[in-house]
Amino acid sequence: MDSPVVPSGGVLTPLGVSSVRLNPGFWASLPTETIIDHCHEWIGRVGWAANFTGAPRRGREFSDSEVYKLMEAMAWTHDPRLDELTSVIAGAQEPDGYLNTKWGHARYSDLEWGHELYCYGHLIQAGVAQARASGGGELFELVKRAADHVCHMFMNGRGVCGHPEIEMALIELYRVTRAERYLEMARRFIDRRGTPALADIELGRAYFQDDVPVRKAEVFRGHVVRALYLACAVVDLAVETNDRDLLDLVERQWERTVARRTHLTGGMGSRHNGESFGEDWELPPDRAYNETCAGVASFMLSHRLLLATGNRRYADLAERTFYNVVAAGPALDGRSFFYTNPLQVRVAGEVTSGVSPRADGGLRASWRSVSCCPTNLARTFAALPAYVATGTDAGLQIHHLTAARVEHDGFAVEVDTEMPWQGAATLRVLRAPDRLRVLSLRLPTWAGGGTAEWSRVWTPGEEVSVDLRMTPRWVEPDPRIDALRGCVAVERGPLVYCAESPADQPPLTRITVDTSRAPEVVDEEIEVSACVDSAEDRPWPYGPPARTETEPIRLRLRPYHQWGNHGPATMRVWLPQG
Amino acid sequence: MDSPVVPSGGVLTPLGVSSVRLNPGFWASLPTETIIDHCHEWIGRVGWAANFTGAPRRGREFSDSEVYKLMEAMAWTHDPRLDELTSVIAGAQEPDGYLNTKWGHARYSDLEWGHELYCYGHLIQAGVAQARASGGGELFELVKRAADHVCHMFMNGRGVCGHPEIEMALIELYRVTRAERYLEMARRFIDRRGTPALADIELGRAYFQDDVPVRKAEVFRGHVVRALYLACAVVDLAVETNDRDLLDLVERQWERTVARRTHLTGGMGSRHNGESFGEDWELPPDRAYNETCAGVASFMLSHRLLLATGNRRYADLAERTFYNVVAAGPALDGRSFFYTNPLQVRVAGEVTSGVSPRADGGLRASWRSVSCCPTNLARTFAALPAYVATGTDAGLQIHHLTAARVEHDGFAVEVDTEMPWQGAATLRVLRAPDRLRVLSLRLPTWAGGGTAEWSRVWTPGEEVSVDLRMTPRWVEPDPRIDALRGCVAVERGPLVYCAESPADQPPLTRITVDTSRAPEVVDEEIEVSACVDSAEDRPWPYGPPARTETEPIRLRLRPYHQWGNHGPATMRVWLPQG
Repeated sequence: MDSPVVPSGGVLTPLGVSSVRLNPGFWASLPTETIIDHCHEWIGRVGWAANFTGAPRRGREFSDSEVYKLMEAMAWTHDPRLDELTSVIAGAQEPDGYLNTKWGHARYSDLEWGHELYCYGHLIQAGVAQARASGGGELFELVKRAADHVCHMFMNGRGVCGHPEIEMALIELYRVTRAERYLEMARRFIDRRGTPALADIELGRAYFQDDVPVRKAEVFRGHVVRALYLACAVVDLAVETNDRDLLDLVERQWERTVARRTHLTGGMGSRHNGESFGEDWELPPDRAYNETCAGVASFMLSHRLLLATGNRRYADLAERTFYNVVAAGPALDGRSFFYTNPLQVRVAGEVTSGVSPRADGGLRASWRSVSCCPTNLARTFAALPAYVATGTDAGLQIHHLTAARVEHDGFAVEVDTEMPWQGAATLRVLRAPDRLRVLSLRLPTWAGGGTAEWSRVWTPGEEVSVDLRMTPRWVEPDPRIDALRGCVAVERGPLVYCAESPADQPPLTRITVDTSRAPEVVDEEIEVSACVDSAEDRPWPYGPPARTETEPIRLRLRPYHQWGNHGPATMRVWLPQG
Repeated sequence: MDSPVVPSGGVLTPLGVSSVRLNPGFWASLPTETIIDHCHEWIGRVGWAANFTGAPRRGREFSDSEVYKLMEAMAWTHDPRLDELTSVIAGAQEPDGYLNTKWGHARYSDLEWGHELYCYGHLIQAGVAQARASGGGELFELVKRAADHVCHMFMNGRGVCGHPEIEMALIELYRVTRAERYLEMARRFIDRRGTPALADIELGRAYFQDDVPVRKAEVFRGHVVRALYLACAVVDLAVETNDRDLLDLVERQWERTVARRTHLTGGMGSRHNGESFGEDWELPPDRAYNETCAGVASFMLSHRLLLATGNRRYADLAERTFYNVVAAGPALDGRSFFYTNPLQVRVAGEVTSGVSPRADGGLRASWRSVSCCPTNLARTFAALPAYVATGTDAGLQIHHLTAARVEHDGFAVEVDTEMPWQGAATLRVLRAPDRLRVLSLRLPTWAGGGTAEWSRVWTPGEEVSVDLRMTPRWVEPDPRIDALRGCVAVERGPLVYCAESPADQPPLTRITVDTSRAPEVVDEEIEVSACVDSAEDRPWPYGPPARTETEPIRLRLRPYHQWGNHGPATMRVWLPQG
């Protein structure tokens, strides 16, 4: 099956990329091909592919992984350039399977920061994609040699990688090959972690989840992408080993993380320092890190938890994260990318040429010295059809409403909808076996929640429909989130909205909104009633309240994922209440 | 004159350490001698003094400066251990004056991060202290050789130090020696900066104020200690060269920084990343960095601006910073120290043994791998009497009300007060020349502001008195400070108060205070009416407001500078309004 995640057990069974066709609509409109082309150009330009050919090495210690993530994207889309890149990297693989352009002279000398095993993880995922999309190939053979090398080197001993990733890759390789050693290697990497297995670092061992064993952790912590990739692997391990306790544990870690450490957009990561989760309730809109890759990682984790448990809360979060973090990453033209996704930007970004600093929040950049996000988006979007629905012996389960044609076991359904802009959706049966089939559709919590289920012997052409309530809604934060006190946000359907202000007009530090009046939909945007005050600086900004004059305005809000496409601007999701 | 800052011009003239005796009271109670002993012990224990004797080098690249700051403290207090340390460091000085335990093999090879010139800065300040406190000595001679070496190496060329500090030190050395080359060297360092003079770094050039020339800057930015040390030197340069435009400029930079980038305590620094200022209005209580050394630097800058302009707003900020940042740094016993001084701590710190990570906010540590704060407090407290008052031909100006005996030009006054606990103060003339003398006293803005002036021919024994209003007051933040919306704080006199909650009982994420009832003074503490709510976690912390039950309590607040002396606890200065 051509899906990035194919568990041996669990409640739901994924469909492959080729079983779902995205029809024109929001999901299909994501500029997947452009992003693949863009990454291919840039990886050439900055020399990260040439690193495999013995050219003077360029890029950070993990740059190999960008090539591999791009290759994974190409595998899902049957891109002929995959074979060229495979030839390039194959030339650098050593006879024993070792493959890394940075550390060949000093293999595994820096497990904390070297990222060698991390890079193998992405390499393996690319090979798995080739095996599943095309039945195998040169890349897949190369990958098995590399994975066998890893098993040979690490099966006995204590090492783990400073950046989790190889664990879930090995489990997927096990799922493809059924070779137990890959599962066992992943299990050992997971169980060693937190014993501790790595040296202490200035950021502290929580940074790479080596502070406590995963079976004793209560919440996701430290570097967000690391934490979520590890959690993905733990779900995979729990499913493959039928370890219900371990699955329960990740579910509880996820619960607390979602209840206390997640931003409204689904973004995770409150600290620039260590690109990490903050403490419970530490959710600053301005310094929210919300790395695009963390959005991808959370989307991957939610998908795994949905497959394992069937609980639609995971699809709810996946949907939120997809529309408001993952889809916000690329510019509308697919040629520039956010690294961080804060919920407030006070100072409009400055347009810079060339490679940008890594974590500038105000404007998307074409490429960065740490450029993990574009290739991560490429491989995610390339496999996107696989996230829409699942299939069982009984029928089809649609988890995300988007225009698509979904087929499983002779049961083909076309979903016709203009989500996320309109709440109406029609599910038309195109083909059906001559027996009882259950068609089910997740109803998002914002639409009341629940699952719509239609169980019958279907006739081709037969339709069912839903109409989800798309009224814009005011949302308030939990009072324990100090950074958001006194503010509200606007959501409509699965989308979070924001005020974006070119040249800071109106000035977004001086607005308050009137929540007694309902937000109004205007095309893809929303209008609310607000006031702008005329506060002037005082010599000291604390004391008795200053009196200010206010002027009423209509404030336009746009979907958060669209922000930053109209030149430098200030922006805020959370709006002070008048 | 035995004062750390002795400008050649400006409106006010400082008094020396020996002209002011601190009588029993808050200022005198600071554990200066203990801190000096403590630093002396630790510098021995961690090998930072032994670095000068050829022992295998230990500590960070700037560890020499900790020895020098301790030596400065010893110079002000006439500590006999100064000569021993001088012998130790003298052995490492090379024939051409070069002195650094880290970079001798590769002098000035890393101006961005090497801190060589920074270390000279602290060395020079120690030498200046010896010259002023004792008329000279071996250290002072060594220092002049080092300073001459710097002038020789850097007078022509482009180099500056990644960490400003040497600029103000050279100007002070000029003030002692009247050798123009030191002033000229400082001027060149200042003028080169921002042209740019240093390589770009991942944190960006604003980190070390090399983004724009100082004469074009509008606000303090980047690494806070670096920014404030540079500003001190700019004030010094403006005064020595009688450059009114340059002084105006620093005043405007200070104005905007105080109006938009300063925490209630006077603390500066909103980002852990880069230990830096945030943007305007970015003032998170939880992630406030407010490094103790930044408090010291701000205190030094305010003092310089007060001397240069006579404007009491600088003494207002100095007072706030002194009581609520500088005095908060050390534990009451003088044996452990905060590095950061946040205004909210959600998770009680964990007691650790040995050397602590550098920037843990919850508990003071005895020593750190970056241990700049203890020695900075040592030298500041050792020279503290010099900050109390100034003298002119016309009389005496008391800027900070604390129990003390102040003498200038035959005019001796004893200040009797229990500040910051009581507002009453008596100024008794002990000795006076037989002519008109003006005694003036700054009235802090919290007490209505202004200056009390008594002008007469004084008879010994004659007294004047004031009684400053010490009613506790609710304080609100400017509405543009998003992180504090809906919160209030309590101040009394010069002190900021905080709730401190051992074991988080009451839970400080769940309280709201009732501002309709006045805060009540109970000994050194304050009590306010509050409610604790019983909010429970929801699966998703955003949505319609949850209903909760609340229970009324009396909430005890203590002076912020005293917090963290009673074991692990949560803490908050800003209290949500009920």
